[in-house]
Amino acid sequence: MNSDIKIAALAKLLEEKTITRRRDFHRHPETGWTEFRTASIVIETLIELGYDVKFGNDVIDEANMMGVPSTEILEENMARAIAQGANPDLVAKMTGGKTGVIGTMKFAKPGPTVALRFDMDCNDVFEATNENHRPAKEGFASINPGCMHACGHDGHTSAGLAIAEILSVLKGQLAGTIKFIFQPAEEGVRGAKAMLAKGAVDDVDFFLAAHLMMPKVGYLAYDVQGFLATSKFDATFIGVPAHAGAAPEVGKNSLLAAATAAINLQAIPRHSDGISRVNVGVLNAGTGRNVIPANAVIKVETRGATSKINEYIYECAEKIIKGSAAMYDNKVTISQMGGAASGSNSPKLTETIGNIAARIGIFNQYEALSNIGGSEDSSYFMEKVQKNGGQAAYMVIGASLTAVNHNLYFDFDEHALTLESQLIATIASDLLTK
Amino acid sequence: MNSDIKIAALAKLLEEKTITRRRDFHRHPETGWTEFRTASIVIETLIELGYDVKFGNDVIDEANMMGVPSTEILEENMARAIAQGANPDLVAKMTGGKTGVIGTMKFAKPGPTVALRFDMDCNDVFEATNENHRPAKEGFASINPGCMHACGHDGHTSAGLAIAEILSVLKGQLAGTIKFIFQPAEEGVRGAKAMLAKGAVDDVDFFLAAHLMMPKVGYLAYDVQGFLATSKFDATFIGVPAHAGAAPEVGKNSLLAAATAAINLQAIPRHSDGISRVNVGVLNAGTGRNVIPANAVIKVETRGATSKINEYIYECAEKIIKGSAAMYDNKVTISQMGGAASGSNSPKLTETIGNIAARIGIFNQYEALSNIGGSEDSSYFMEKVQKNGGQAAYMVIGASLTAVNHNLYFDFDEHALTLESQLIATIASDLLTK
Amino acid sequence: MNSDIKIAALAKLLEEKTITRRRDFHRHPETGWTEFRTASIVIETLIELGYDVKFGNDVIDEANMMGVPSTEILEENMARAIAQGANPDLVAKMTGGKTGVIGTMKFAKPGPTVALRFDMDCNDVFEATNENHRPAKEGFASINPGCMHACGHDGHTSAGLAIAEILSVLKGQLAGTIKFIFQPAEEGVRGAKAMLAKGAVDDVDFFLAAHLMMPKVGYLAYDVQGFLATSKFDATFIGVPAHAGAAPEVGKNSLLAAATAAINLQAIPRHSDGISRVNVGVLNAGTGRNVIPANAVIKVETRGATSKINEYIYECAEKIIKGSAAMYDNKVTISQMGGAASGSNSPKLTETIGNIAARIGIFNQYEALSNIGGSEDSSYFMEKVQKNGGQAAYMVIGASLTAVNHNLYFDFDEHALTLESQLIATIASDLLTK
Amino acid sequence: MNSDIKIAALAKLLEEKTITRRRDFHRHPETGWTEFRTASIVIETLIELGYDVKFGNDVIDEANMMGVPSTEILEENMARAIAQGANPDLVAKMTGGKTGVIGTMKFAKPGPTVALRFDMDCNDVFEATNENHRPAKEGFASINPGCMHACGHDGHTSAGLAIAEILSVLKGQLAGTIKFIFQPAEEGVRGAKAMLAKGAVDDVDFFLAAHLMMPKVGYLAYDVQGFLATSKFDATFIGVPAHAGAAPEVGKNSLLAAATAAINLQAIPRHSDGISRVNVGVLNAGTGRNVIPANAVIKVETRGATSKINEYIYECAEKIIKGSAAMYDNKVTISQMGGAASGSNSPKLTETIGNIAARIGIFNQYEALSNIGGSEDSSYFMEKVQKNGGQAAYMVIGASLTAVNHNLYFDFDEHALTLESQLIATIASDLLTK
Repeated sequence: MNSDIKIAALAKLLEEKTITRRRDFHRHPETGWTEFRTASIVIETLIELGYDVKFGNDVIDEANMMGVPSTEILEENMARAIAQGANPDLVAKMTGGKTGVIGTMKFAKPGPTVALRFDMDCNDVFEATNENHRPAKEGFASINPGCMHACGHDGHTSAGLAIAEILSVLKGQLAGTIKFIFQPAEEGVRGAKAMLAKGAVDDVDFFLAAHLMMPKVGYLAYDVQGFLATSKFDATFIGVPAHAGAAPEVGKNSLLAAATAAINLQAIPRHSDGISRVNVGVLNAGTGRNVIPANAVIKVETRGATSKINEYIYECAEKIIKGSAAMYDNKVTISQMGGAASGSNSPKLTETIGNIAARIGIFNQYEALSNIGGSEDSSYFMEKVQKNGGQAAYMVIGASLTAVNHNLYFDFDEHALTLESQLIATIASDLLTK
Repeated sequence: MNSDIKIAALAKLLEEKTITRRRDFHRHPETGWTEFRTASIVIETLIELGYDVKFGNDVIDEANMMGVPSTEILEENMARAIAQGANPDLVAKMTGGKTGVIGTMKFAKPGPTVALRFDMDCNDVFEATNENHRPAKEGFASINPGCMHACGHDGHTSAGLAIAEILSVLKGQLAGTIKFIFQPAEEGVRGAKAMLAKGAVDDVDFFLAAHLMMPKVGYLAYDVQGFLATSKFDATFIGVPAHAGAAPEVGKNSLLAAATAAINLQAIPRHSDGISRVNVGVLNAGTGRNVIPANAVIKVETRGATSKINEYIYECAEKIIKGSAAMYDNKVTISQMGGAASGSNSPKLTETIGNIAARIGIFNQYEALSNIGGSEDSSYFMEKVQKNGGQAAYMVIGASLTAVNHNLYFDFDEHALTLESQLIATIASDLLTK
Repeated sequence: MNSDIKIAALAKLLEEKTITRRRDFHRHPETGWTEFRTASIVIETLIELGYDVKFGNDVIDEANMMGVPSTEILEENMARAIAQGANPDLVAKMTGGKTGVIGTMKFAKPGPTVALRFDMDCNDVFEATNENHRPAKEGFASINPGCMHACGHDGHTSAGLAIAEILSVLKGQLAGTIKFIFQPAEEGVRGAKAMLAKGAVDDVDFFLAAHLMMPKVGYLAYDVQGFLATSKFDATFIGVPAHAGAAPEVGKNSLLAAATAAINLQAIPRHSDGISRVNVGVLNAGTGRNVIPANAVIKVETRGATSKINEYIYECAEKIIKGSAAMYDNKVTISQMGGAASGSNSPKLTETIGNIAARIGIFNQYEALSNIGGSEDSSYFMEKVQKNGGQAAYMVIGASLTAVNHNLYFDFDEHALTLESQLIATIASDLLTK
Repeated sequence: MNSDIKIAALAKLLEEKTITRRRDFHRHPETGWTEFRTASIVIETLIELGYDVKFGNDVIDEANMMGVPSTEILEENMARAIAQGANPDLVAKMTGGKTGVIGTMKFAKPGPTVALRFDMDCNDVFEATNENHRPAKEGFASINPGCMHACGHDGHTSAGLAIAEILSVLKGQLAGTIKFIFQPAEEGVRGAKAMLAKGAVDDVDFFLAAHLMMPKVGYLAYDVQGFLATSKFDATFIGVPAHAGAAPEVGKNSLLAAATAAINLQAIPRHSDGISRVNVGVLNAGTGRNVIPANAVIKVETRGATSKINEYIYECAEKIIKGSAAMYDNKVTISQMGGAASGSNSPKLTETIGNIAARIGIFNQYEALSNIGGSEDSSYFMEKVQKNGGQAAYMVIGASLTAVNHNLYFDFDEHALTLESQLIATIASDLLTK
């Protein structure tokens, strides 16, 4: 097992570089579909390491991009990325927010294809600026107002690049193909579908993803089950305005259509196969007190224990929304704003990871997460790989967080990045040598 | 004007016969579309008086019959009518509830066509049986359980026959055509439309109808305005049942579809052109507590100051009902159960009647009803005649009622029938001599 | 273990008597709270066997009786029971529907208290009368129209009496106390609570109940988990009627209050601790199309994976119903119509039963029911016994049903009664000899 | 009638001054409750003319001020008013938005009290800035962004000051008392109630108000009937937020409470006494898609043909809103945002005005407005005066508008101001000389 030792040494060696990179990303956070600077750095690094790199149109299917910002915002952020050092040629090729990157390396010997997925986007959070917050104190807090890496994707991306470097060093002894998927827009579960639709994991035998989380450094959960499938969408109702006093009969009331939809969405039956959820988180309708309201929007989220349950709920929701609009003679459009599949780790890959983790001995606490509950769009990749007969796993890695995810005081112990790099590189190496 | 005197004398002469006939009708009341015995007597009487009589299929359009009882009930009532003395051959020709009758007499000299309309049906009321109630005391209370003439149509029908007799006596001096329309199913405004659809008033120049009402004998309202247009319909929802605990997602909930319709029907806008009303009077849904309900019915009524407003409400209602059904993936059918047009008396005919009433001097109190408010399906006839350029009027005749309409103690002062006969015969005679 | 042999022989010996008794019960079925004849026979039999018998007021708490028929129906059924041979004195003591019976036998030696519970009521079903249905063919089909033992409680009751006889024979060798609970009104889960409230199981260490089910004779499920807690209730809304056209503002609309309640009951949140259900199975409101409806009733059922979840749902439901009534200025009353606790078998007792079943070897198929899903009000007794530190178990016994429960062709292989008697008597004997 | 000639001459003489003043007001528009500069000018002018002037706390009842802007906005606008030339001492006395002014002159001889009411506030409109718009072309367009006199209150205020000047000239020949009411916040019908509550018209015998409108200069409507009573209010719901996926049962949903209120508000019955209206113009609820929404606001407006109908609707609305909140265990507060009474001109005063208008002959088109339909809060003053036995009238004066009210191109023919001044001064003079 001297490759274990080699990987451990490489991970250690890259620690400082990885932390520096993480802090650079932390200082220049970019929200979903605007990761122009981050992706540029990823592209250049992967090319330098000898990977075959695809990005922009080649890896993002425009029709499946969900929750994309307006052209104005995209253009502003492209300009900001360039101003903050991004390669203008690369940025130009990501026009429209196509900020996904895939780096592939085919080894000499035949073997399986292993995919590793990392997310790159930040949150819509104004970062804390006071001395209690290490990034502020040490000068690497966000310089992009309203943008903050408050979910650790800066760490994910830099660990991904470290792993890419480790595996490139080991390439002589590996078989098959390694594939690095750097995904935009994980927040809001908006980005995976567009990469999936371009075939990102069509040829993948093993798929791995990971997330830094609250527990102390040394914690590892590799038996993860129960991602909820989810769909996120907006319904926009358009009616006809009218003076509420003088000619109410002329109006077509969008507020009432939306309110009827919101209430009746709650009546989608509970499902006997497992957990179901539906939430109308926002309803905004109308412009003036004395006008029959002719515009309304509802922001809806559904979840299901399985993708099938979630689809059932979605189909019911569609009927309810369209029926409500018809009742009030409104036009309605439903826009997809995000989505994720349900999912659980493949048992065999779980076992493999457990054995490797035990072997390399860098973690001191193991846990099974039998009902992770939330939604993550790496589940789309997992589902596809598993359907094709491959194996997939998601890991949760302790990072001694300073605050809960999405909090303005979020920070983590960067030593977790070294552990993450070593673990994932070792797993990939194992899978690529058999 | 010695014809005034002649008519007065004839009306007086017929008083006893008319009262006898009214009491016979009162004792054998028949609800809407089951007036087999009543219609048989009307037919035979009109034939005897020399009228050209049409009935059954010739005067009732099946497709426009609303709220017809089941075949079983119709057959039961046909048998009862025969058992109570109706002519079986006539009854047979009214199969399906086609109990309308039209008697026409064309006079030698050319002239206008005058139509007089009388309604024949009783109410779904169990008549009082104690001594305080004159019909019970004097032995002419209903012998048909659950059926009672509690709105005076027994009086209308017998007054109609008296007028037919008076005018047949006068025929030598009259010009044009007189037409007696004996209509079934006025309660629930279900019957006029089916006679209208067969052309009952297509050729009519003057149309008259009347109703006995609460005020004392001697009261007359001939300037009547503001019948509300109305539509009455049932919506039946069919879903899919399911066990509410074990597999709720299999169900398609009709109760919720109907409840959503009922509530949202209230949101049909008030109309700036005048009065609008909508009522869901009945909602019945579901069979068992633990079953997703898969059947529901709502009984709805709309009203509008004008037929146009009522149509607007009806169209909105249709959208709301269909949308609600679609929301819950239910099938829905809407059945017409009744309807009436809006309407007001023609000013010129109002004036004519006023002059005649003053001339014959048998009434001592006159009132204009500028907002009668309710609905009556003679309005369909009035609307049609007025649209064709003719004149129409509805009169309210005081009858010293003993109780409000539809009450089990309803009765009236039968002298009102003589006044009604004399007034209407005189108006018709006037119109047919000019 | 020669007591095993003794019990097997006694069960065999009683087979014919048990079948005869079952057919007698089948022929004279009585619905919930009207089991006057059935209970009379149970009482007389238990007394004869030497049991100390309590019934009527002594075992039924009036305030906790749910879904009791009207006094008229109760009186009719008391008369019918007497006409069909019930002891009039016993029937009189069960006035008001207090048809529960508890028979106790205290053995000489000290020991635990073991309770066995059997249900006695039939279903509201018209039994099949043709030759394809064995009870009809062989002359023991129901003679009480609309009443049928279509859920096997006739079998439960007769098996209970057989077990009572077996244990009375063995009394010399037993220690502690045996308690037979014959419960009325299990259908609709209405009866257990009233016996619980009178302390039926307050002193019980071991509790057993069983149900005959679809699988072939020889099937036994003794590891039963996941009864859903449930509550069943009606909400009755009282408003103020008004003429819908003439004075709608006078009315207080009960139909809309009930419809609003029905829809918003669906919005009770899904619960993160487990399964939740809510169903409005029936809504009836209003009397006439043109009247503002002033009466409405909804029939509601809630279920929860735990009693706590069910209570949460019930409390939300109460708020929604009261709020809806307040919106329309209605009075509302909520009547409890049934209820059951959640529950699962005690693991230790499950193990005990498994060992005994294996030992006596009369079953050939074993199954664990880890999510039984439905509701049974024996769960109230189980919950209480388990809370008091005792053990409780529910068993499902294969009976080769000819049709699903509650079907008009329901029947079963009566040999299952012998297996049930032998099994339960052996378990009780074991528990009472340690 | 040489006072007619005198008034005509004075009105003509003041024309230029009035136009100049109107343009100054037009250039410095101030929205409801922020009329600090306008009121300062009114105060100073009235004092100069010899009126006894009250303002601030003396004429505005704080508890009855509706729809008042935030303290920040009020302070900003006070500063702006001073910067644009308002007297700082006067502005200080109007702190809190108390911008109403009453100027009174008691004449030597005893006589009736005549009140004239003028409104001063502008609209929330960005005025057109191009050459097609005369105020822009001629340099008197608004310099306060988002504020524009687009309803002619600049004209009303300057006409009011002209009339004040005319009557001050005539004071020697007048009897009784003249009272000028300069009201803030007519837009949104928010201001009259607060002046009414301070007794503005408690002693008034004759009340007059007027509005410039679309018809050509020369048009006068003085027989105005049918102001709708109205109430305008916001309902704010506060619930409890929760994660929609993880713990939905923790939440108390405000969006659903508000939606239920919005829909059921539509079910407030139509009223048989006349026009009723209810509109929910705005519903805003929730913050994030995946959060159970814990905040909601609805903006509601009711109208009724009479103040009584409006009160009925308001009371129903209150029940519905409170019931909806109770259903979802929300707290709710209802804030009054505006209101007006129903009303019609006093017939005798109408006649008086008609005679005077005919006498002075400056109008060439007269119209009766029998169903003005909208709402105006001068109706509160009218209702009060009429209840006290006085007479009140509202007049509509043609001003050849260039665009509909509230439009960014609104302007009018300033000659209308001269006609308005002459007419109202003449009426007041007549009433004060009898």
